[in-house]
Amino acid sequence: MFESAELGHTLGKADYDREVGPLREALLDAQYDLAAKGAFPVVILIAGVDGAGKSATVNTLNEWMDPRHIFTVGLGEPSEEELERPHMWRFWRQLPPKGKMAIFDGSWYTWPMEERAGGHLKEARLDQALQQIRRFEQMLIDEGALVLKFWMHLSKVAQKKRLKKLEGDPLTAWRVTARDWKHFERYDTFRVVAEHALRSTSTAEAPWIVVEAADSRYQKLTVGKLLLERLRARLDSPSKPPAVRAPVPVASLDGVNILTSLDLSRKLDKPAYEKELELLQGRLNLLTRHKAFKDHNVVLVFEGADAAGKGGSIRRITQAIDARLCHITPVAAPTEEERAQPYLWRFWRHLPRRGSFAIFDRSWYGRVLVERVEGFCTEADWLRAYGEINDFEDQMARSGTIVAKFWLAISQEEQLRRFKERQESRFKRFKITEEDWRNREKWDAYSAAICDMLDRTSTGIAPWTLVESEDKYYGRIKILRTLCERLEGAL
Amino acid sequence: MFESAELGHTLGKADYDREVGPLREALLDAQYDLAAKGAFPVVILIAGVDGAGKSATVNTLNEWMDPRHIFTVGLGEPSEEELERPHMWRFWRQLPPKGKMAIFDGSWYTWPMEERAGGHLKEARLDQALQQIRRFEQMLIDEGALVLKFWMHLSKVAQKKRLKKLEGDPLTAWRVTARDWKHFERYDTFRVVAEHALRSTSTAEAPWIVVEAADSRYQKLTVGKLLLERLRARLDSPSKPPAVRAPVPVASLDGVNILTSLDLSRKLDKPAYEKELELLQGRLNLLTRHKAFKDHNVVLVFEGADAAGKGGSIRRITQAIDARLCHITPVAAPTEEERAQPYLWRFWRHLPRRGSFAIFDRSWYGRVLVERVEGFCTEADWLRAYGEINDFEDQMARSGTIVAKFWLAISQEEQLRRFKERQESRFKRFKITEEDWRNREKWDAYSAAICDMLDRTSTGIAPWTLVESEDKYYGRIKILRTLCERLEGAL
Repeated sequence: MFESAELGHTLGKADYDREVGPLREALLDAQYDLAAKGAFPVVILIAGVDGAGKSATVNTLNEWMDPRHIFTVGLGEPSEEELERPHMWRFWRQLPPKGKMAIFDGSWYTWPMEERAGGHLKEARLDQALQQIRRFEQMLIDEGALVLKFWMHLSKVAQKKRLKKLEGDPLTAWRVTARDWKHFERYDTFRVVAEHALRSTSTAEAPWIVVEAADSRYQKLTVGKLLLERLRARLDSPSKPPAVRAPVPVASLDGVNILTSLDLSRKLDKPAYEKELELLQGRLNLLTRHKAFKDHNVVLVFEGADAAGKGGSIRRITQAIDARLCHITPVAAPTEEERAQPYLWRFWRHLPRRGSFAIFDRSWYGRVLVERVEGFCTEADWLRAYGEINDFEDQMARSGTIVAKFWLAISQEEQLRRFKERQESRFKRFKITEEDWRNREKWDAYSAAICDMLDRTSTGIAPWTLVESEDKYYGRIKILRTLCERLEGAL
Repeated sequence: MFESAELGHTLGKADYDREVGPLREALLDAQYDLAAKGAFPVVILIAGVDGAGKSATVNTLNEWMDPRHIFTVGLGEPSEEELERPHMWRFWRQLPPKGKMAIFDGSWYTWPMEERAGGHLKEARLDQALQQIRRFEQMLIDEGALVLKFWMHLSKVAQKKRLKKLEGDPLTAWRVTARDWKHFERYDTFRVVAEHALRSTSTAEAPWIVVEAADSRYQKLTVGKLLLERLRARLDSPSKPPAVRAPVPVASLDGVNILTSLDLSRKLDKPAYEKELELLQGRLNLLTRHKAFKDHNVVLVFEGADAAGKGGSIRRITQAIDARLCHITPVAAPTEEERAQPYLWRFWRHLPRRGSFAIFDRSWYGRVLVERVEGFCTEADWLRAYGEINDFEDQMARSGTIVAKFWLAISQEEQLRRFKERQESRFKRFKITEEDWRNREKWDAYSAAICDMLDRTSTGIAPWTLVESEDKYYGRIKILRTLCERLEGAL
C-alpha cells in the first residue's frame, strides 16, 4: 500500500516554482466557482505519520487558496462540552456548509488509529470504529460532499530524518514533542494499523490518496494538483450521478400490519388517570434526581399522526421535571444554515449535555415519513436514511444517552373528530392548518411509511414504543410508564 | 422598594383555581400569536432571594404555556468553552429568536450581585457591572425584545420559614443547600445590594417587577397575569414606538477630514517589502508561540473601500500563523437564523477560544457603514450602534482579547484602476460585482460615515489603525507591524 510512496520522489525548486503559479490560480478559480455556486461542501482530511508535514501542508493550502472560504480544523483535546456528547459531535459541528471547504488536520481516524497502535484497542473494536467511519463518510458523500483523504507517508528512515531536521531548526523545533518520539518507536506497529485502516476505508467515492512526504515540494504540489483535479471534475460534471434505485418495500398483502393490529380501544377513566399521573410524575421526578442521572442524558422522540396528542404527552413529561434540565425542539422546516448541511446536522446540534433531556416534537424520522410521502427527497435519500438514523442513534446510545421513541397511534375517525374540535375551539384553532387536512388524505401512504419505519428502526438500543392514543389518558400514562422504566433500567 | 412585597399577600385555593384556567388559555393564545407572527423575542428574568420559589415559578410558566416555544435557561457553572469568552457570551448564545420566549432562572445579574453581597466586589465595580447590564438590556429593547424582569421577594422571617419548609419535605429537600443557608446569614447585606441593583437597572422599558413570594399561589398568579398583560399589550400595539430622532452628525465644513489628511503617497519598493515581510511574519509566528499567548485571543477587523486590499492583507497574516489557530469570517448578508436575533449576535457566535485568532473580513461596522449609507437600517439603529459596538469591544478586551481594527484607505482614482484591472483578469473577475460599481458612486456618503465611525469607535482598548493602502506593499507591512506591536504589548 505504501510502496509507491517510498520511491524517493523529489522535485527541484525551479520545477516547483514554475508549476505553483498556474496551480494557485486554478485552485482559486475553482474555489470561487464552488463558493459562487454553493454547490457542495468539500471535506479534506490530511492524515499520516508524525513529522510528515501535515500542518505544513494545511498551511500551504490556506496560503494558496482564499482562506476566507476554508475552515481549518485542528484537533486538540476535546472540550468539556464535546466530551458530554457522542464522539462524532465535535466533527459534526465543524462540517463545512455547501460552497465551503474544511481541512481537517486530525480527524475521526485519529482516535481509533492511535488507540490501536498504542495497544489500547482490540482489533475487533478498531474494525467496528472503521465500519462506523465508512458509513459516516458514505453519508457525507450521499449528501453531496466531496471527500478527499490524503495520507502523508514517510518510511521509517525518512521519518527519523525528518524529526531530527525539525528539531534542529529553532523555528520548527516546537513541532516535535516527546509524544512524536514515542510514536516513532512504534513505527512498525503504526504502519500495520494504518495499512489496515486505509484498506478498509478506501471506497470508490472516497479513496485514500497516499502521498510521499519525504520531499516537501513534491508533497505539496501533489496534494494541490490532486485537489484541483477532483474539485474541477466535480464542479464541471453536470450533476451528481443518479443513485441506484433500490427496491421499494412491499406493503402487506392482507392489510394486516403493525398499526392495524394495535388495540385502539384501550381506555383509562379520569380518576384512575389522575392517580396514575401523579404517581408516575413523582417517580420520574425522583429519577431525574438520582445521582447516576448526571452521567446520562435523555433523548425523546415523539412522532404520530396530526392531532395524535404529542404536545399534551410532552407536557405531562415536562411538568414532572425541572424546566432547566429540558430542551424541547419542535421540528419545522430546516433553516437556511441547516439546508446547507447534511440532513442529520440540524438534529446533532440539539443533542443535550449530560444530566438533561432533549425532547423532539417530530424528528429526524421526517425523512422517512413526510419527506418520503410528499416526495421532498429522492427515493435513494429516504432509503439510505434508515441506516443513517440507526447509526445516529447507536452513537447516542454508546455515549450514555437514553433514546426513547414514541409513535402515537389514533384511528382515522378519531383524527377527524379532533380536527373538528380544534377548528371549533377559539383556543386550539392555531393547532390546525390546511396542511393537516391535506396530509389526512394520504393516510394510506403514510401508513406504509410508518410500518417500514417501525420495522427498520426499532432497535434494542433505541426501541419504538407504539402508543394507543385513541384515549388520551391511556396514551399519556403508557408513555410516562415506559419512560420511567427506561430510566430505571439505565440508572 | 420591597415594602409592598412584605404585606403578607395570600390567595385562597378556590380563587386561584378559578383564575388559572382562563389565564392559561389567554397565555397560550398570546404565545401562539407571538410564534405565528415571529414578531419579537421575549426575555423573562426570574430573579430574587433564595427559597423564593424561582424554579417553581419557571416550571409553572412552562406548564401553563407551550414549552415547545420556550427556552428555559438555568445557570450552572460556566463551561470551559464559556470561560474562554467574554462573560456575556453564555447569555448571547441563549437568547431567544423572534417569536420565542426565554426564561432565565439565574441571569446576568447573578454574578455581580452575589459577588457584591459576598464582599468580593467593590461598590464601584458593582455599579460598573450594572451600567453594562443597563446598556445590554437597552440594546435588547432597541432590537425589539420584550424584556420582563421579576424579582421574587421574601422578608427575612418568611425566607427562613420557606427554607425550613422546603428542607422538611423529602421531595424538595434537595433544593436547599448549604450555600442557601450561608446566603441566609447575609440576608440584610443581600437586601441592600438587591435594592441598589434593582433601583439602578429599573428603566421605563424594562422595570423590575417585585413579587411577594411568601404565598406561592399569589406569586404564580401575579407573574402569570403580568406576563400576559405585557405580552398582550405588545402584541396588540401596531408597532414599536418610533425611536427619538437623534441629531445627525455634521460633516466637516472645510472638506478636511481624517481620511483626506492621510498621506497616500507612502510607498515601499519590492525588495524592501519582501525583506520586511519575512521579518515580520517570523516575528508574528514567534509571538503566537509565546507561552502567554494561550491566555489571550485575537480579534482582527478589516474594513476598507472595495478593492483596498483586505483579502491580500489577511493572507499575509494567515501565512505567518498556524492555520488551525485561525478562523476567518467573511461577513456577508445575515442568514435567516441571524436575522431573528439582535444585530451583534452573528458576531458574538464567532468569537474565538483562547490561543486563537478570529479575523473578520468586514465586520459589525457594516451597521454604521453600508447599512447607514444604503438605508438598510433606521437612523436610530445606526446611531445607537456606536455605543453598542464600543460595549461589545470593551467586553472582549476585558476578557483578555486583543482587538485590532484596520481601515484600509485608497484614493478614488486608485480604486478605479484596480476595478478595471480586476475586470480584465480572468482570475480576479470574481472579485468585482455590479454592487461594487454602485457603491463607488456613493464615495462621499461613505466618507462621512467612515469619519464618524473612526471618531466614535477608536478607543484605547480597541483602536483603529488607518492604513495607507494606495501602495499595497506599504499597507501590508504597516498592518503586520501594528499587529506585532499590539501582541508584544499584551504578552
